[in-house]
Amino acid sequence: MIVLGGTASNGIDERLSKIIGAKLVKVEHKVFPDGESYIRVPSSLAGEEVILVQTTQPPQDKNLIELFLTIEAIKDVGATKVTAVVPYLAYSRQDRRFLDGEAISVKTILNLIHSLGASTFITVEPHHPESLSYFPGEVKVVDPLPSLAREIAKVVKRPFVLGPDRGAAGRAERLARELNCDFSYLEKERDRRTGEIKVRGVGLPSLKGFDVILVDDIVSTGGTLLEASKIAYSLGAESVNVVAAHMLLVNGALQKLKQANVKEIIGSNSVVPKERVNLVDISDQIAVKL
Amino acid sequence: MIVLGGTASNGIDERLSKIIGAKLVKVEHKVFPDGESYIRVPSSLAGEEVILVQTTQPPQDKNLIELFLTIEAIKDVGATKVTAVVPYLAYSRQDRRFLDGEAISVKTILNLIHSLGASTFITVEPHHPESLSYFPGEVKVVDPLPSLAREIAKVVKRPFVLGPDRGAAGRAERLARELNCDFSYLEKERDRRTGEIKVRGVGLPSLKGFDVILVDDIVSTGGTLLEASKIAYSLGAESVNVVAAHMLLVNGALQKLKQANVKEIIGSNSVVPKERVNLVDISDQIAVKL
Repeated sequence: MIVLGGTASNGIDERLSKIIGAKLVKVEHKVFPDGESYIRVPSSLAGEEVILVQTTQPPQDKNLIELFLTIEAIKDVGATKVTAVVPYLAYSRQDRRFLDGEAISVKTILNLIHSLGASTFITVEPHHPESLSYFPGEVKVVDPLPSLAREIAKVVKRPFVLGPDRGAAGRAERLARELNCDFSYLEKERDRRTGEIKVRGVGLPSLKGFDVILVDDIVSTGGTLLEASKIAYSLGAESVNVVAAHMLLVNGALQKLKQANVKEIIGSNSVVPKERVNLVDISDQIAVKL
Repeated sequence: MIVLGGTASNGIDERLSKIIGAKLVKVEHKVFPDGESYIRVPSSLAGEEVILVQTTQPPQDKNLIELFLTIEAIKDVGATKVTAVVPYLAYSRQDRRFLDGEAISVKTILNLIHSLGASTFITVEPHHPESLSYFPGEVKVVDPLPSLAREIAKVVKRPFVLGPDRGAAGRAERLARELNCDFSYLEKERDRRTGEIKVRGVGLPSLKGFDVILVDDIVSTGGTLLEASKIAYSLGAESVNVVAAHMLLVNGALQKLKQANVKEIIGSNSVVPKERVNLVDISDQIAVKL
């Protein structure tokens, strides 16, 4: 068994190889002047089971194409099995058709990964776990919440977990169980035309004295969490903190959250954003799936 | 039969629909704040043969992913046949393995296009036509040289065609036949380690009084053509002109060529670069293949 570090591996490849005691090799990679990626894999992969680590954080499309090229190259040199470890799976929010004719992007991506020759797919906290059924092979899901909970426990005293919308209720409950605390969730309405978001807190208890933990799977622009944070403070929260598996942090999200007095921002290294935030390593959680 | 304009169609979709008298529809498209592409195709494609026009000029990876998502969406709404018209095919120069373990990128791209459901593939002047055999379906190749030759004939008086390397000899011969003039080619050596290029003219005739037409398939950084232009002028050329199907023009290529006194730069609209150059429409050449 060999761990192959892809072009975007966030160091997870190195830690994984140490944890499971497998040899680590790296994809050889460059980008031509016109923007095309060059990929070369070691011929020592012949006859081996290969664990490829490649996340698909922004730039998603570049990282995806490099993932595709790498899987085919691994198969071409004669590897017997490819396990694709994709800590952050791009396009995972486009997993159903809201309007006729919409691309179910995650279906396409997962099908391509399989058709190129990866038989096992491992990812961290997918947007909807059921969407992984589009992958025709074996699927394993890594739960980052235990790791995130340990980090939260270090920095807050009286946690109360709040999901920013109904879809996050299950996640909030799971995190609350890890933290041995209470939880609730807000109601979110998104105007599908304008994209405008409204968040409401109905029937919430007083949050006075609590360190509120807003939990989501992905933090993108942070718009929803910003609204949720205001509601939490208006209900008396001692502090508001944001926890999510995947910290994309685009369009100045971090600045907005900090301006809204969000205290701790904790993610996993499935995504390493440009801005420095507190990132928990999830390599050990991935290792137990191998 | 319906022509579907993809997210990067350079107007070829519109002209194609007029020439063949087929209805034109457009992909609905947006980019989310995190950089993911959203694709929606009209449900009116159900039961239709669809001609999808999507070039894969830079940003190649974004345009490729959007091509993949669009093909799958077309199949999902129930189209009976998908013809992928990809005027410029990205990754076409990576069509063989120079070193063990290198990704044969164009093989991967062509296989994915087919596996998603496109049964016919049409492209303009591929780097090596034989590499299209990686596409398991029907392949049609569009020759832009007749269109390019007509444009050249408008702007130069005494053409002499010069291929910048041995690989361009066949192309030079084809263009010379269209222009009813003589041709030759230079010798190019590329150091595969440093990427440095040396071009030599051996046994060339005097070019005194001739308008030299340097012809290639792709102009990327323009490095080779710059050297070729110097040689042509040193042999007495009246003018040096550059003609190629695909004008990528990266890293200031246009400025470099103009500084080297290159007069006319003529390409096709398979690629529309940021800088304005003389681009010949190849829609009519594509239409005859349909």
